Amino acid sequence: MSDVFAKCRLPGTYQFVKDLGVYPYYRAIEERPGGAEVLIDGRVLVQAGSNDYLGLSGDDRVKEAAVEATRRLGTGGGGSRLSNGSLALHEELEARLAAFLGRAAAMVTSSGYLANLALAALVGPEDTVIGDRLIHACLIDAVRLGGARLRRYRHNDMDHLERLLGACDPGAGRLIVTEGMFSTSGGVCDLPGIARLARAHGARVALDSAHDVGVLGASGRGAAEHHGLEDAVDVQTVTFSKALGTVGGAVAGPEEIIAYLRHYARSMVFTAALPPACAAAALAALDVVAAEPERRHRLRAAARRLSGELAAMGYGVVPSDRPVMAVPVGDDLLCFRLWRELFDEGVFATAMVAPGVPPGQALVRVSITAAHTEAHLDRIASAFAAARRMRLIPET
Amino acid sequence: MSDVFAKCRLPGTYQFVKDLGVYPYYRAIEERPGGAEVLIDGRVLVQAGSNDYLGLSGDDRVKEAAVEATRRLGTGGGGSRLSNGSLALHEELEARLAAFLGRAAAMVTSSGYLANLALAALVGPEDTVIGDRLIHACLIDAVRLGGARLRRYRHNDMDHLERLLGACDPGAGRLIVTEGMFSTSGGVCDLPGIARLARAHGARVALDSAHDVGVLGASGRGAAEHHGLEDAVDVQTVTFSKALGTVGGAVAGPEEIIAYLRHYARSMVFTAALPPACAAAALAALDVVAAEPERRHRLRAAARRLSGELAAMGYGVVPSDRPVMAVPVGDDLLCFRLWRELFDEGVFATAMVAPGVPPGQALVRVSITAAHTEAHLDRIASAFAAARRMRLIPET
Repeated sequence: MSDVFAKCRLPGTYQFVKDLGVYPYYRAIEERPGGAEVLIDGRVLVQAGSNDYLGLSGDDRVKEAAVEATRRLGTGGGGSRLSNGSLALHEELEARLAAFLGRAAAMVTSSGYLANLALAALVGPEDTVIGDRLIHACLIDAVRLGGARLRRYRHNDMDHLERLLGACDPGAGRLIVTEGMFSTSGGVCDLPGIARLARAHGARVALDSAHDVGVLGASGRGAAEHHGLEDAVDVQTVTFSKALGTVGGAVAGPEEIIAYLRHYARSMVFTAALPPACAAAALAALDVVAAEPERRHRLRAAARRLSGELAAMGYGVVPSDRPVMAVPVGDDLLCFRLWRELFDEGVFATAMVAPGVPPGQALVRVSITAAHTEAHLDRIASAFAAARRMRLIPET
Repeated sequence: MSDVFAKCRLPGTYQFVKDLGVYPYYRAIEERPGGAEVLIDGRVLVQAGSNDYLGLSGDDRVKEAAVEATRRLGTGGGGSRLSNGSLALHEELEARLAAFLGRAAAMVTSSGYLANLALAALVGPEDTVIGDRLIHACLIDAVRLGGARLRRYRHNDMDHLERLLGACDPGAGRLIVTEGMFSTSGGVCDLPGIARLARAHGARVALDSAHDVGVLGASGRGAAEHHGLEDAVDVQTVTFSKALGTVGGAVAGPEEIIAYLRHYARSMVFTAALPPACAAAALAALDVVAAEPERRHRLRAAARRLSGELAAMGYGVVPSDRPVMAVPVGDDLLCFRLWRELFDEGVFATAMVAPGVPPGQALVRVSITAAHTEAHLDRIASAFAAARRMRLIPET
């Protein structure tokens, strides 16, 4: 017989990376001295890897809402939403989210991962899920848990999506799954194409707005608002750990779908309720999203500036006004070396390798927030300029 | 072709239950006026469904730790632990948990569900997981995600476990999975039997201590300490949403296993970090667990008293000193009616039906905490006495 732990003793990839001094993960942040800076190993670095796009996790209004809720309602609910842990505060947040997103109903989960995992209840062995090649891991986990067939189309490739829809079993239920703004590239989904194909093939559309709520669209409602196609989306998931500055998630959609998920989504029924602090923080963050559109405008201007500068330096960054920028590298080790170079230059970016991205497509991700000043952007640009002088990646 | 949403339009079981006025779920708590009371629909009820066993979610020390962490570090981490969201506070909590549990290492996740889901990385299609019939849904989801074969043994039935171990493929890795204290019954796992069979059959043992950490064992280390068999457990999971009074979870075990999970457990790698408030609350709660064993003693005395009274009334409760008491009912609708009777009498208990328990084994669960006073226990006992006069369940 074999030992289930044997698989943990494979030659340690990460030991090799550690020995080379370029290990990029689990770097402990000691303090967060400003909204866009972190203290690591006694050094102050520019945080260039956070998804806190509007800079709200350090906003005094959001923090004080969390403080007040903690003092009034405690540090945890003591049970699942289903049984004994539902708060009026959760219901208030659900009503606010539904109104904000323009959907009939919303269900709050205790993380964004768990919101997407709830989609498992919507798909079974009789269904086919057709997902963009770059959808997040938790969406893939949802399909696995639901037991549905998963087909993947090349990133934003509508011809490929159409072929896969055409190849579905005639009796199969079809669900197209995409992210709104892709977490690894900052690219926006081709929702016009998806909407057209969904109608033609009788498919439902699930949109993961984790990275686009608060960021895209005139009101911050995300990629569907950006495209003017909110009605083409059947079910929308969001997380509170990006633009809303805390932790938690939600599924929004038609009343009957949300009512069903409240009773049959295992990631809802079998998990502890979101803490009062996070629910209150998310509500306060939604206030800021509505009241201060200038945060989104500032964020877009900053993104345009930095992505333009990185592209001009010869990095393969696509200039855009989205706050996530992918610096393609390819090789994992080269990716770790570039990450380390930036780290030494005072910038804390993200090294992404498989399975976070497709194998062989390692990249360094830079994400910026409304809390970044021009001086922070200068420091990020300087770090990349320095890294370029090191010739760590080929010039494009 | 069919519609993936069609499954949500099945005749609504819960509408029928709602129409009867006995729907027990998603009751919104408006305020928590005391540690063991809740305000629902303007009425103050005794909370008899919480897993906040030590009453710490409302403890001033725990709340103020959360407040301080929120003000210092913000309402969220803005990223995954892996990439950009690790805090020194998380590492401090991991070190404290490992020391407390007597394990080499620990990894903190953002919920207990996600801690158990991390076990998916330990088992693959070549492995067989043998789990108690009553293990929690998230452990089953972990096995599904890992793709391992799942076999279930009758609750605490060591003969059945032995037969299943004997029937494993000769080459298969074997992992026995059990809860320490079972969430639905309050029963404790037969760890002596499991340890003996694991040794004989070369199996590893995973112990889910969600409900027993802080409750069982002289130091509150859970069911393994209770049995004096901590070395027989290979990997132990905990949640912060029961005795530790907040939200979050952890996996504890050998250094190499935890290091592996940090890089390969999808529920760790692909989720946002635990908020500072929850990490700080869990640390403060661990201080109380160590400093105030009298909370555990008071809890056990209260459990003995109430379970004895319920049993004496004729309910099929097994008298014990564990804070979870199962009142077996059997039929779902009868269960909802008993729940409603208790609710009307001022007690907010838990109605458990499938899939939370095996089909046809519906029960009303009563859980008590160290925050319950004798007067609260009186009110719970009175409510059950009243329900008995209604002859809602057959006398035993």
